[in-house]
Amino acid sequence: MSSSSFFTQGDARADVDEVPSIGIGMLGYAFMGRAHTNAFHKIGYTFWPPALRPRLVHIAGRNADAVAEAARRYGYDKSTTDWREVVNDPDVQVFDNGGPNDQHLEPTVAAARAGKHVICEKPLGRTADEAFELWSAVAETGVKAMTAFNYRFFPAIRLVKEMLDDGTLGEVRHFRARYHQEWLVDPETPASWRLTKEAAGSGALGDLGAHIIDLARYLVGEPESVSANTATFVEDRPGGHVDVDDAFDAVVRFESGALGTLEATRVAPGRKNHMRFEISTTKGAVIFDQERMNELKVHLIGTTPGDHAQGFRTVLVSETYHPYWENWWPHGHMIGWEDSFVHELEHLLSAIRHDKPIGPHGATLEDGYRCTEICDAILRAADTGERQKISYRGLSA
Amino acid sequence: MSSSSFFTQGDARADVDEVPSIGIGMLGYAFMGRAHTNAFHKIGYTFWPPALRPRLVHIAGRNADAVAEAARRYGYDKSTTDWREVVNDPDVQVFDNGGPNDQHLEPTVAAARAGKHVICEKPLGRTADEAFELWSAVAETGVKAMTAFNYRFFPAIRLVKEMLDDGTLGEVRHFRARYHQEWLVDPETPASWRLTKEAAGSGALGDLGAHIIDLARYLVGEPESVSANTATFVEDRPGGHVDVDDAFDAVVRFESGALGTLEATRVAPGRKNHMRFEISTTKGAVIFDQERMNELKVHLIGTTPGDHAQGFRTVLVSETYHPYWENWWPHGHMIGWEDSFVHELEHLLSAIRHDKPIGPHGATLEDGYRCTEICDAILRAADTGERQKISYRGLSA
Amino acid sequence: MSSSSFFTQGDARADVDEVPSIGIGMLGYAFMGRAHTNAFHKIGYTFWPPALRPRLVHIAGRNADAVAEAARRYGYDKSTTDWREVVNDPDVQVFDNGGPNDQHLEPTVAAARAGKHVICEKPLGRTADEAFELWSAVAETGVKAMTAFNYRFFPAIRLVKEMLDDGTLGEVRHFRARYHQEWLVDPETPASWRLTKEAAGSGALGDLGAHIIDLARYLVGEPESVSANTATFVEDRPGGHVDVDDAFDAVVRFESGALGTLEATRVAPGRKNHMRFEISTTKGAVIFDQERMNELKVHLIGTTPGDHAQGFRTVLVSETYHPYWENWWPHGHMIGWEDSFVHELEHLLSAIRHDKPIGPHGATLEDGYRCTEICDAILRAADTGERQKISYRGLSA
Amino acid sequence: MSSSSFFTQGDARADVDEVPSIGIGMLGYAFMGRAHTNAFHKIGYTFWPPALRPRLVHIAGRNADAVAEAARRYGYDKSTTDWREVVNDPDVQVFDNGGPNDQHLEPTVAAARAGKHVICEKPLGRTADEAFELWSAVAETGVKAMTAFNYRFFPAIRLVKEMLDDGTLGEVRHFRARYHQEWLVDPETPASWRLTKEAAGSGALGDLGAHIIDLARYLVGEPESVSANTATFVEDRPGGHVDVDDAFDAVVRFESGALGTLEATRVAPGRKNHMRFEISTTKGAVIFDQERMNELKVHLIGTTPGDHAQGFRTVLVSETYHPYWENWWPHGHMIGWEDSFVHELEHLLSAIRHDKPIGPHGATLEDGYRCTEICDAILRAADTGERQKISYRGLSA
Repeated sequence: MSSSSFFTQGDARADVDEVPSIGIGMLGYAFMGRAHTNAFHKIGYTFWPPALRPRLVHIAGRNADAVAEAARRYGYDKSTTDWREVVNDPDVQVFDNGGPNDQHLEPTVAAARAGKHVICEKPLGRTADEAFELWSAVAETGVKAMTAFNYRFFPAIRLVKEMLDDGTLGEVRHFRARYHQEWLVDPETPASWRLTKEAAGSGALGDLGAHIIDLARYLVGEPESVSANTATFVEDRPGGHVDVDDAFDAVVRFESGALGTLEATRVAPGRKNHMRFEISTTKGAVIFDQERMNELKVHLIGTTPGDHAQGFRTVLVSETYHPYWENWWPHGHMIGWEDSFVHELEHLLSAIRHDKPIGPHGATLEDGYRCTEICDAILRAADTGERQKISYRGLSA
Repeated sequence: MSSSSFFTQGDARADVDEVPSIGIGMLGYAFMGRAHTNAFHKIGYTFWPPALRPRLVHIAGRNADAVAEAARRYGYDKSTTDWREVVNDPDVQVFDNGGPNDQHLEPTVAAARAGKHVICEKPLGRTADEAFELWSAVAETGVKAMTAFNYRFFPAIRLVKEMLDDGTLGEVRHFRARYHQEWLVDPETPASWRLTKEAAGSGALGDLGAHIIDLARYLVGEPESVSANTATFVEDRPGGHVDVDDAFDAVVRFESGALGTLEATRVAPGRKNHMRFEISTTKGAVIFDQERMNELKVHLIGTTPGDHAQGFRTVLVSETYHPYWENWWPHGHMIGWEDSFVHELEHLLSAIRHDKPIGPHGATLEDGYRCTEICDAILRAADTGERQKISYRGLSA
Repeated sequence: MSSSSFFTQGDARADVDEVPSIGIGMLGYAFMGRAHTNAFHKIGYTFWPPALRPRLVHIAGRNADAVAEAARRYGYDKSTTDWREVVNDPDVQVFDNGGPNDQHLEPTVAAARAGKHVICEKPLGRTADEAFELWSAVAETGVKAMTAFNYRFFPAIRLVKEMLDDGTLGEVRHFRARYHQEWLVDPETPASWRLTKEAAGSGALGDLGAHIIDLARYLVGEPESVSANTATFVEDRPGGHVDVDDAFDAVVRFESGALGTLEATRVAPGRKNHMRFEISTTKGAVIFDQERMNELKVHLIGTTPGDHAQGFRTVLVSETYHPYWENWWPHGHMIGWEDSFVHELEHLLSAIRHDKPIGPHGATLEDGYRCTEICDAILRAADTGERQKISYRGLSA
Repeated sequence: MSSSSFFTQGDARADVDEVPSIGIGMLGYAFMGRAHTNAFHKIGYTFWPPALRPRLVHIAGRNADAVAEAARRYGYDKSTTDWREVVNDPDVQVFDNGGPNDQHLEPTVAAARAGKHVICEKPLGRTADEAFELWSAVAETGVKAMTAFNYRFFPAIRLVKEMLDDGTLGEVRHFRARYHQEWLVDPETPASWRLTKEAAGSGALGDLGAHIIDLARYLVGEPESVSANTATFVEDRPGGHVDVDDAFDAVVRFESGALGTLEATRVAPGRKNHMRFEISTTKGAVIFDQERMNELKVHLIGTTPGDHAQGFRTVLVSETYHPYWENWWPHGHMIGWEDSFVHELEHLLSAIRHDKPIGPHGATLEDGYRCTEICDAILRAADTGERQKISYRGLSA
């Protein structure tokens, strides 16, 4: 047994070897790379038995020293500055793309063509065209493929989905979502790839808005049209010009007739990672706020005569009957943001192991593509001042 | 001294009789009639010395028995089913129009022409044309005239205004306001004048939206354009057809460059009188929620090195240095919704007594008119799908 | 008709004159004097028809100019610096004692002996002996008599009482109450009568603790024993020595077997008027916080299979079916602290008019006396370190 | 390289082998066993470089099948039903005792005598005598030894400690702590070892109360005396008699003169893991609630003239300058309850690696012992009704 392994174990593991291992290749070692890697570590014992046992095989990143240290820190066998080496590594069966937006298309398609299952961070493309190209190319290969919309895997959000699906909440009339951050309030905050159209496609829209657009589709259904405004409050920052939006606001009508609002901004003082939505239905209402991610506010219109105590409930989503909680701690002992990735990647591994579809709970590449169509429509609506119909392309048969 | 005065009782009051009394005529005895009347009762001793001592002289309403009982209950000398009798009553100096929207124009103009000071409930008109006509006609008479946007007189909202005016908050980048109620959730809730275009002009828009539109103008400045959606979820109710909006959502750009969202609905379960706004600025943020009307959430970007405790503060707006609170109770002993009317009507009486302008803190008839222009623009935007520029008419010199 | 009546104005009132008026005499024009007077003003039209129409007849206070101005401001016919003049005024039928603690015994007893109905602020006496003497002497006269524990008249607290009485909440196991203020945090805050044993009897205990002790008895039942600590953090202040408690903490066992904690302090920074209690029962829990006085947090153990949304509800206590709310505004339009006095004093007037008992919802003088016994026991427990049994004296037959 | 490893790594790990590994032996595979094991997994990459790389060597538990499965699941090399095998395993350098309370003394002492560093769950002993014996015996061996009071390692609580230590908060006047759970509300919840004096020592007191007693000592200092009540609401449950407390309440005076209250219960409906404390000081106040563990409410008395926005701040404790957060995610991306153990066990490993003391931030065995003295004093106070002085024994030189 290698003394360099933290968790290596030997003979006692014999019978769990019936659970096959699966080799993971990662692109990116920063924010998303860390979050996904941590999740791969935790999957093996949080879910029991796990669908597959992830093995951290190969990690790619831009800086040779940094990626090598990331490999040592997180336990990847190999590191490289050339993502093609990961994509072509025969020990890799899953390619996890946590790179910047302009690195989504080519590596993901190459990995799929090399027979790897793929998961790619959002937004799937900088434009709907790019995302469509990615989806189309991957679809031809037949691998399992997922867009990394991790909010679908928050227990409180999954509980909302359950209550919508089983009729508890009735029909949706209003969906109001926002994603506010503060990191661009200071005009001296320097420019970066996230603030350029070339690398990022859009600003708050593609970065933050994509999440709430995906939740809108997941929870309410397809939007029919959007009207919108965008703004760039600080156009020149140290190190570069900003040519993407700092913020957008949109109104949306859903095919179901429901109305909605979508907002994202990077200049909201006091908001760290304030992703919040509120849904009003014919039978009640729910409110979720990521900064209190283990809670859900739920109002159900009372039907009990004499119940004089109606009001929004603060539900601590941590009971064994709540989504994913059979794997966690006794109620009231809260989980963290990182654990949404544990659920998300387990979903992927489980789909691979049992050849199940990614959807409807996981976001497919088509979901990823459709989100970018809505992003593009919001930009067009903001530019033209005209309400934009949403329409999607499909794959030719 | 008239024995019909509430606040002039016998010899001990001799020297306060230097404070003149003023005769009040009221149209409407229901919700707004009650709220305004209660405020007139409280003004005389809450503010000390009061600007004027209100005398409740004459009240008009549709039902003879009901208005007579209202007069007895609230202490009006006289009651009538014909508002012209109030308007022409020589003992009346202030005409307070709390009638339905289709009763705003004619009685208010008649009262002004009879030389009465006027205050009229919002929306000033069912359309911008009607509101403009009201404003124009009253302006020619030279009486004091006010639109009853009582939210301007909530201490917490006035504190926001102070913090914007004195630079504490810097420049506004986002204004997000909503006004949600639930009373139309049940499709069996019957139709009423509020649900007809004929009597009300619009639905949630003019009733609820008008308040947040006025606050947008009061706190942020003039909107440049709007895009919007409206919806009527239940078109036929017991007793009639609904031809106004149950809900609207709009995005707004201000002349200053700030972005905003405006939402109102009558079908949000669990929301009783949920008027909430959130303002993000270059220096901080504030959040107000009418259901916790004595509180203000305030975030100010920290400037103290070593301050590791930054975050939204829950400010109990009840200190003697807070707006209006020198007239109230020791801090922490909260006031109620009704007290916004005490402040509002004192503002009117004080303007009358000292011949001061109604604005900028009180809403003028021009403010009332401009609000209806924005309402009309929202309806046009929703109809056409095209962003609408906001423009206003002025009075000819 | 007396021209000194607020609510009897001319012919239109003819038939409501069947509602008799009743003359009010007040001791004190400061905090409690203002709050009670405001309530008398509002009773006449808030409750309709009112039980009796209060007439503000006579007010007494220490400073001649101040009390005269208070009379003019609030509409009392007469003012005096000698409370005996109020007590003996033939136009006074109700004597309302809002004076300092050392002015409770003699004026209240004198008023009762003069045949006036009485209401006296809490604590009823500086000691249990004094309170017992007050109760005994008044009881002999047969007038209606009430202790001014106004928290019993908060709608949210009355709702708790209803839910305890009708079995919704089951049996109480824990009662945890606190009353925190901040006004003595600064050691430079000067001394006053409230900080002397001579005038006040005790400090935070009698002033703040009395309220939560009364609520404990009202909601849970009789305490069996107490153990306690007290502290005086600042013993010398500008203007005098402090010989009462700044704070106390106590643990209590109720006769029912329930446990409780009681806390009060005047040195809790950030707490303005933080009176909060939490009750845990066999079927649920409730939480009340005075600073959000229109809300009640309610948890009811779920009995519906498949209800995955259990949690504390934030109940906005403002529905027409909630206590007292048939007299107020549409739901969500909140009332203020002052309105607890409107309810309290209407309770007294209604008891007088219809010859009903003050209890169990109003606090009787026996309730006022019993509260002081518990206060005394807390002081003894703090002094001796020994748990004190609670026992009460009764009136001899 | 073993293909059975999840995270196996090979050559790229060569240079991190400069960080020595350390063998972990665990007693217990249920709640605490899982939580500690998960933390050992995460330490290696969360802290970088880690002080030591934990290797999961040996785990003991009562049921042979269950402990074997736990070993496979969590990656221990070996499992056993005899804790002596763990204690005597030469590959084990740290013995982590997560067993029930009656399994704290003997295994922990044996491990220390075998030269293993030890960490033991709270309460250290069922009685102060037992805890003292444990501490004394271990102290003679010179190993690193820690009591597992994990709340000291919550970032928000550590931030409170910093603000107390650096003078930001001034002197403490009130410490009010509670730990409420609900799992014994239902009288049909069966008996278990936790409900017997024989196995657990006490009930809510030792299980929940121990945490807040330790925090009282950590944050405020030594208590001088306690008075208390206890109650057992359901004495007979399916499967056995309950001879420990369901709940206790205590009042405490600290040596500093501060006052405090301590409460714990297992019969508070709606409370899952409600550990909450509130500290009032001469300069402000803080409030922590475990169910919102990433937040801290902070009030600091304002010193800025013109600051009209004072109030409790909701601080999201997730900035890089907050305790432990340099190891975690971007602000607003919250961590979970489990991560307190990551911090706690890293503290232990770091103390071992660098031969640093466990205190003052980690809880020593003396801290663990002192906590049990206070627990015993609370039981005596409850039994006798007499305030109990707190006194501690020390080790003879």
